[in-house]
Amino acid sequence: METIRTVTSEVELIAITSNAEELIEEAGRTCYLSFDKKGPDTAQKLIRALVKSGHHSVLEHGYATFRIKGGSRAFTHQLVRHRLMAISQQSQRYCNEDDFKVIIPPAIEKNLEAHDIFNQVVDYCRSAYAQLQKLGIRNEDARFVLPNAVESEIVISANFRELRHIFCVRCAPAAQWEIRRIALQMLRIMKEKAPTVFEDFIIDEEKGIASTAIIS
Amino acid sequence: METIRTVTSEVELIAITSNAEELIEEAGRTCYLSFDKKGPDTAQKLIRALVKSGHHSVLEHGYATFRIKGGSRAFTHQLVRHRLMAISQQSQRYCNEDDFKVIIPPAIEKNLEAHDIFNQVVDYCRSAYAQLQKLGIRNEDARFVLPNAVESEIVISANFRELRHIFCVRCAPAAQWEIRRIALQMLRIMKEKAPTVFEDFIIDEEKGIASTAIIS
Amino acid sequence: METIRTVTSEVELIAITSNAEELIEEAGRTCYLSFDKKGPDTAQKLIRALVKSGHHSVLEHGYATFRIKGGSRAFTHQLVRHRLMAISQQSQRYCNEDDFKVIIPPAIEKNLEAHDIFNQVVDYCRSAYAQLQKLGIRNEDARFVLPNAVESEIVISANFRELRHIFCVRCAPAAQWEIRRIALQMLRIMKEKAPTVFEDFIIDEEKGIASTAIIS
Amino acid sequence: METIRTVTSEVELIAITSNAEELIEEAGRTCYLSFDKKGPDTAQKLIRALVKSGHHSVLEHGYATFRIKGGSRAFTHQLVRHRLMAISQQSQRYCNEDDFKVIIPPAIEKNLEAHDIFNQVVDYCRSAYAQLQKLGIRNEDARFVLPNAVESEIVISANFRELRHIFCVRCAPAAQWEIRRIALQMLRIMKEKAPTVFEDFIIDEEKGIASTAIIS
Repeated sequence: METIRTVTSEVELIAITSNAEELIEEAGRTCYLSFDKKGPDTAQKLIRALVKSGHHSVLEHGYATFRIKGGSRAFTHQLVRHRLMAISQQSQRYCNEDDFKVIIPPAIEKNLEAHDIFNQVVDYCRSAYAQLQKLGIRNEDARFVLPNAVESEIVISANFRELRHIFCVRCAPAAQWEIRRIALQMLRIMKEKAPTVFEDFIIDEEKGIASTAIIS
Repeated sequence: METIRTVTSEVELIAITSNAEELIEEAGRTCYLSFDKKGPDTAQKLIRALVKSGHHSVLEHGYATFRIKGGSRAFTHQLVRHRLMAISQQSQRYCNEDDFKVIIPPAIEKNLEAHDIFNQVVDYCRSAYAQLQKLGIRNEDARFVLPNAVESEIVISANFRELRHIFCVRCAPAAQWEIRRIALQMLRIMKEKAPTVFEDFIIDEEKGIASTAIIS
Repeated sequence: METIRTVTSEVELIAITSNAEELIEEAGRTCYLSFDKKGPDTAQKLIRALVKSGHHSVLEHGYATFRIKGGSRAFTHQLVRHRLMAISQQSQRYCNEDDFKVIIPPAIEKNLEAHDIFNQVVDYCRSAYAQLQKLGIRNEDARFVLPNAVESEIVISANFRELRHIFCVRCAPAAQWEIRRIALQMLRIMKEKAPTVFEDFIIDEEKGIASTAIIS
Repeated sequence: METIRTVTSEVELIAITSNAEELIEEAGRTCYLSFDKKGPDTAQKLIRALVKSGHHSVLEHGYATFRIKGGSRAFTHQLVRHRLMAISQQSQRYCNEDDFKVIIPPAIEKNLEAHDIFNQVVDYCRSAYAQLQKLGIRNEDARFVLPNAVESEIVISANFRELRHIFCVRCAPAAQWEIRRIALQMLRIMKEKAPTVFEDFIIDEEKGIASTAIIS
């Protein structure tokens, strides 16, 4: 049996609106033509008021792009259900997947017997995929034997309002572990880059969840 | 080896705007307040003019819901990338998939050796899934060993403009065979139910494609 | 001075998904493949659970179309900010507006002096519009002298989830009186046609507002 | 008669994705995992191929924010019909409009008599607005007497794909002069900042229009 290459998710911010919180203030003040009220910490105050009062459309002027590696096809199938995103995903139609990596669920990893079964499936599918390729089956058809565990790289862009919505839904205890883990990584980055917009999200590191009182 | 239950796609229209083409005329005439121009075949004429001139927003008042059975997870992962749709899909987190059916690509089905490999993978994965379940692994984690070929039932709703866009992109020769086959079934139904809105799409039954000169 | 033709808003449902609540049940059960659990009042129970738990995407399979007469251009400019809608609006570029009707704000109507000023502006603008037309100015340019009070007919379609969002935002006390009045008329209709989906919205007829504990 | 303050539109880019074309290449190469093919001018080649072949979703990773001054409410009512945008607009509910500026259509400006009528309407409405305010009528109601010509400041953000669509529709000869003029200003800026993405749009400066053979 080959060594199975399992991976852990890796989230990288590859683009974000420059000075996003200032831009949000600039845009928000347009509604009231209150540019004269700008001062050293007025962006923070305004954003807090917008978030609290539900005027979240102003947050849409902020935009961020993430590259996510180490997520499974099970995860990406969930992620792309969010519809206010730009998405560019590794294509199993065009890419040769003979060297695929896999994501192993923690519950399986912890269970020796289950882990063994999992590894055998991965080996079996990899070998079948290669055999189908040798028989002249195209990648887009050979992939039908690839399991959900296979890694799929993805780049997504979303505005800050949609990111808040994603964090609301996907960092919650009821979310599936993989998307929750990745959404948490995204949230940590956003809390650093646009601290006021995301400050109401409280992360519970022990439980690996996050929540806010302000629904998005 | 068990008998593998392969399925073919089955598309059913389960809801559609009543008298959709009349409704589109009703809405379209609002822009010009030209209700006095209504007559026996004016809906057809107006819709043709709207489609040809690119005023496709009026078509959005028509809405249709399809139930699609017999599509693979490879297919659904493509389909849900269309973002102007309502989607309710069979959840591999909640459903027990021990009795899953599979979609077999025609290129694999035609090749005896490939077919055999495919069947073996399906058997192997089914058995592994059941074993993981017995070890107490939850469905949402056991599914990591399920292949892309597994069937996933899905219900989608979209407006007529978005359906036109889907048919433009997914009935084209470059589209993947499975989504093309299903999109064609949807198109055939729409051509029957809203004939004027979709009349410019020409189906080539032999090649299993459709196209129109009017980009959507 | 001519008699000013003021109008009150008139909301008419011109299309809606047939048996919408049954359809929502049909779609919702796809996620769990729980079709065997259907019974006499299971649609209600399922919809209540979906609404309460925030699984509102299933509600998007229901779709409704309204014709709204008697709303001002001030109102329509607000309404069309909702982005998940199909919109067909009376065009001031193409329609001859020489016979326009107006919406008068209650606060102005109640104040004799204000009412008089309002009527004079309406007369003045109507006369100027006609004069510009006579000078060969096209409607699309002559309309620059038309006031916000001018009526604009509009047909909109939206799914039930978006309608819930509109009612949340536009039936609230902070909403502007005109859009609130019209949104309330829409809500009353939806409560009759899809009672379970909208049952959590409580209308306060005296105050002319509505609210729910479930944010959309 | 007061001097009427007419204004011309002024479009300012206030935010844009840094190195947008490189980011688009980065995202686009994810689909094919073809990062090894990157070179000095590969971003240009890839973007040209994406645009030509209709794979415009990758362009959505680029995002731009514009502040538009000197546009009328007639213009903004058209602009906000584009639904894939973030919008923050000067509110006539909250702002005091007693000092409003106006946009005058060129056809009216060129015609002495029409110009005079226009100016008188503007004066009349301004005076009525001020009188209503004095009578205690709130801004949100007093604005019902303001004409379409009144300026309304607006900040919008959109991704590059949507900007392409806006330029297709709004720079065309059939578009209304004001939105066409402003869309052209936006296009000129985008051609400078993301030259490859917008290079297929040919501007005809004499006619004040732009067009492309690639429909978006």
